[in-house]
Amino acid sequence: MTEATGNGLLLEAFDAQLFRDSAETAVSKLEKHLADQSIRGLELIHPQELARAARALMSEDSDSIGAFDEEKLAAIIDLYVRTGIQVHSPGYMGRQFSGVVPLGGVVDFVSSVVNQPSSFYEAGQLPNVAERIMADELNRFIGWEPDSFAMVTTSGGSLANLTAMLAARNRDFPQYWTEGGAAFGDRPRPAIAVGADVHYSVARAAGVMGIGEAQLVRLPLNDAQQIDVAGVRPALAEAERRGLHVFCLVASAGTTPVGAFDPIDELADITREKGIWLHIDGAHGASLLVSDTHRDKLRGIEKVDSLTWDAHKMMFTPAPCTLLFYREKAHSLGAFRQTASYVFDEEPDPFTELDSGDKNFECTKRPMIMPLWTMWAVYGRALFAKKIDYLCALTQEAHRILDGEPDFRTLHSPEANILCFRHHPEGADLDEEELHRLQIDIRDRVKHRGSFFISKVDIGSVAALRVVMMNHQITAEHFRMVLGEIRRAGQEILSSKGRR
Amino acid sequence: MTEATGNGLLLEAFDAQLFRDSAETAVSKLEKHLADQSIRGLELIHPQELARAARALMSEDSDSIGAFDEEKLAAIIDLYVRTGIQVHSPGYMGRQFSGVVPLGGVVDFVSSVVNQPSSFYEAGQLPNVAERIMADELNRFIGWEPDSFAMVTTSGGSLANLTAMLAARNRDFPQYWTEGGAAFGDRPRPAIAVGADVHYSVARAAGVMGIGEAQLVRLPLNDAQQIDVAGVRPALAEAERRGLHVFCLVASAGTTPVGAFDPIDELADITREKGIWLHIDGAHGASLLVSDTHRDKLRGIEKVDSLTWDAHKMMFTPAPCTLLFYREKAHSLGAFRQTASYVFDEEPDPFTELDSGDKNFECTKRPMIMPLWTMWAVYGRALFAKKIDYLCALTQEAHRILDGEPDFRTLHSPEANILCFRHHPEGADLDEEELHRLQIDIRDRVKHRGSFFISKVDIGSVAALRVVMMNHQITAEHFRMVLGEIRRAGQEILSSKGRR
Repeated sequence: MTEATGNGLLLEAFDAQLFRDSAETAVSKLEKHLADQSIRGLELIHPQELARAARALMSEDSDSIGAFDEEKLAAIIDLYVRTGIQVHSPGYMGRQFSGVVPLGGVVDFVSSVVNQPSSFYEAGQLPNVAERIMADELNRFIGWEPDSFAMVTTSGGSLANLTAMLAARNRDFPQYWTEGGAAFGDRPRPAIAVGADVHYSVARAAGVMGIGEAQLVRLPLNDAQQIDVAGVRPALAEAERRGLHVFCLVASAGTTPVGAFDPIDELADITREKGIWLHIDGAHGASLLVSDTHRDKLRGIEKVDSLTWDAHKMMFTPAPCTLLFYREKAHSLGAFRQTASYVFDEEPDPFTELDSGDKNFECTKRPMIMPLWTMWAVYGRALFAKKIDYLCALTQEAHRILDGEPDFRTLHSPEANILCFRHHPEGADLDEEELHRLQIDIRDRVKHRGSFFISKVDIGSVAALRVVMMNHQITAEHFRMVLGEIRRAGQEILSSKGRR
Repeated sequence: MTEATGNGLLLEAFDAQLFRDSAETAVSKLEKHLADQSIRGLELIHPQELARAARALMSEDSDSIGAFDEEKLAAIIDLYVRTGIQVHSPGYMGRQFSGVVPLGGVVDFVSSVVNQPSSFYEAGQLPNVAERIMADELNRFIGWEPDSFAMVTTSGGSLANLTAMLAARNRDFPQYWTEGGAAFGDRPRPAIAVGADVHYSVARAAGVMGIGEAQLVRLPLNDAQQIDVAGVRPALAEAERRGLHVFCLVASAGTTPVGAFDPIDELADITREKGIWLHIDGAHGASLLVSDTHRDKLRGIEKVDSLTWDAHKMMFTPAPCTLLFYREKAHSLGAFRQTASYVFDEEPDPFTELDSGDKNFECTKRPMIMPLWTMWAVYGRALFAKKIDYLCALTQEAHRILDGEPDFRTLHSPEANILCFRHHPEGADLDEEELHRLQIDIRDRVKHRGSFFISKVDIGSVAALRVVMMNHQITAEHFRMVLGEIRRAGQEILSSKGRR
C-alpha cells in the first residue's frame, strides 16, 4: 500500500536528472530572452485565441501520469515569454514593473525549488537572518538607532500599506481589534488623511479595514502634485469639525501618476505635533534612498512611523519583494494579534524570536528577501544607485527633449523616473474632451502597433501619456523614437476622424 | 549623461552569458539537493552565528559595482539550501509546506526572470488565460455551470480568506465599504461564525476588517473535531439573541491541527436557509477534490459561496499559489472597489475583461498559476491524485501502526494526511500538565537532534505530536523510525528529570 515506488511516473516527476533537463531548457530560453535587445512593446493576442493555443499544449485527461515532454515545456516557455510585458526590452516604458537583475532571478529560482516559508525562523533560517541584515543595511540611509526599529517583508506594497495602517489604527484604538468598528458609533469616527494622488491600495485599505472610504480626508496638492503643506492643517481642522479622529496620514514617496515626492520633513512636524501616525508609501520611490544624488527627496524619513518600500520596483528584484519599516520596533507587533498553537510557541527562544508570523499578514510567505540580499551581497549598493541615477537622469533628459518640441507639453518636472505629457498635434484645435480622447487613442494605437509600450494617466480630468523609465538599456534615442510613434499615431487618428 | 553604456559593470550584471553561468551554478546545486534522499530534519543554527556566516559572504561597501563572483553565489546557495526546512527529505514530516514538483520550480524560475505581473491581462497574457483554464479544469470536481463562477489567484490562503470574507461583508452590508464599521453602532453587529478549529487567519481577518474578534461566533466540534452540525442552529440563535448579525460562516476542508473536514453539505443547507455566506477554507484539503478516492470528503462543495484552495500545499507548487473560487461570478467583484486611472481603463475590452486587479488585493501579483498549469498540462490530474492518495494511505497506515503500540495514543482517525498522537512512556505516571510538557520537550529534542522534523499542536489543553505527510518518499518504515526517536527522546527527558 505504501509502495509509491510502485508508481514509476510519480517518482520520475521528482527525478533530479529530469529536473536538470527541464531547467536547462528554461535557462536556454531565458538566456536568449535576456540577450534580445530588440525594441518591442506588447504582442496583444485575443484571449480566446491564446486560450486555444494554451489548450493545444495540454495532455488529454487520463488515469495515468503523463510522461515528461521537453518539447511541450519549450513551447510553453516560448508562449509565456512572448506574450508578456517585455521588461527587458528598450521598447518597454509603460509601467513600474521591473526587469530583474538576472542574479536575482536565479536566487528566486532556488527559492522556488527549496520552498522555504519565511514567516518562521526554523523553516527558513537564512532568509530570516538576511532580513535582519538588509534591514540594517538599508537603515543606513534612513538613520534610526540599531535595534530600535523593525522591518518585515510582505507580499506587495498594497499589503504593506494595509499592515502599517492597521498598526496605526490599533495604536490609537486598541479595542478596535476585538470590538470592531461598530463599537465606535457615537465617538469621533476614525479617519485617515491621504494625499489626493495616493495609490489606490490606500483607499482600498480604508474600505478593507472597516474605516470606510468616506473617512478618507484628501489633502490638497500643490503645482508639483505633492501634498501642499499649507493645506494640511486646515484640512485636519476641518476633519475634526466634521467629527473625525484622524489617526494616520499617508503620504507618498513617488506617487504613481507622476512620481511626486510629498514633503516628508514638513509633514512629520505636523503629525508629531498632533500625535498622528505618519506612513509613507514609498513603494516606488523609497529606493532613491540608496542614491547619494536623490536621497534628499526623502528628507525627514527618519521621523516617520512607517515606510513601504517595494524592492521589486527600483531595486530590480523579482516580484513581490516589499519591505515594511517601522521606526519603533514595538509597533511592528501592533498590526495583528492571534494565537495558534501549531505555529506559535509558548516560550519564545533565540530562534523563534526571529519569527515574523505575528508581524506579517501571511502564514506561508515566500523568502522574498533572498534575491535582494544576494544582489546586495555580490554587487553592493552601487548597482542600485547607479541604475537609479541613470534612470532619473534619462527622465530629466526626456523632459528637456519634450520642452524643445512644440507639439508636446510636459505636465510636471520629473522628480524620479516617471514623466507625463500630452501630445497636441500642430494645427489641430482640440477641446478638452477631444484632447483627452486623443491621448487615450494614441496610447492604444502605440500599444497595438507593438514596438513600444507606454501608459496613460488622468491628470486633472484629461488623460496624459506616461512613461516610466525602468530599463537602463533605454537611451534618449529610444525616447525620440517613441515621440515619432506618438506623432504618427496622432496623425492617423485625426485623419480617420477627418480632423486634418 | 545617458551613457549607461559607459558603466560596464552595470551592463555586465544584466549580461545573458553571466545569467547562464549563474543559473548553471544554481541548477547543479539544486540537482544535488533533489537527489539527496538522506533522512534529515532541521539543522538549527543560532541566528547570531548564521548572521556572521552571511555577513562574511557580503562585499565591502564601495562606490563601484562589485564583480560577479561565482564562488560566492555557490556558497550562498549552499548555506540557503542547508539551513532551511528539508521538504524533499523523508525526514520532513512537520508542516504543510510542500516539496515542489521540480517542473513547477522550473516554470516559477521563468516567472522570476520575465517578471510578468498578472493582475492585468496585457502584462501577463498567458498567466491570465491559464487562470481561466485551470478554473475550468478544477471546476470539473466542483460542478458549477461553466461561465457562472469565478476564480482569482492570490498570495496565500490568509489573503484568500480575507478576500472572501470581505465579499461576504460587502454583500450583506453594502454601505460598509464607504461608511465603515462605525456606521453600525446601533444596529445588530456584523458577526462571523467559525468552526472552533478554524485557521488563525480567519480570526485575524475579523480583526483586520473591523468586525472584531469578539464578534466571532465559535461553533462547537464533534468527537472527530469537525463542526458539530447539531450545534450550529443553537449557536446561531444564541448569536442573534446577543444582537449579532451573522453574515458569514467559515468552515474548514482540512483543519490545520488535525486535518478534519467540516460537513459542508449539511452546513450549506443551514446557511442557505438563513441567507448566510458559506466560505470554505480548503487551503489544505481542497486538493482532495482531484482524487476519486477522497473527493467525497468535500461533499456539497457545489453549494458553497466561496472556497480557498492552496495549490502550494497538496498540489505541490512553489508558494504561494492560492486559488479563490466564487460560486457566483458577480460576487468576485464585491470584495474591493476602487478607481485608479493608471491601471483601470474606462472602457473594458476583450483584453481588460480578463484583468483581475479589481478582484484581488494585490496590484503587482506574481503569475502564480503558471507552475500549476504547466504541471497540469504536462502530467495531468493523475500526478496530483496519485500523490494525494499515497499520502493519505500512508497516514492511515501510520495510524494503524500507532494503534498497535501501547505507549502511543492516537487522538483522531486521520481524514487526510495529518496525524496527531501522544507518547505515553510505559511505566511513567504523568498528570495532564506533565504529559503536555513531555510532548513539547519531545518535539524540541527530536527537532534539535536533526534527523526528523515533526510538529506539535494543542488538542484540548494538552500538547500532541503531529505529523503531516507531504512527501511521497516517506514510507511506513520512516514513520517507525520517528517513533523510535520519540521513545528515545521521551526516555532521556524522563531520566533527566529523575522520573524513571
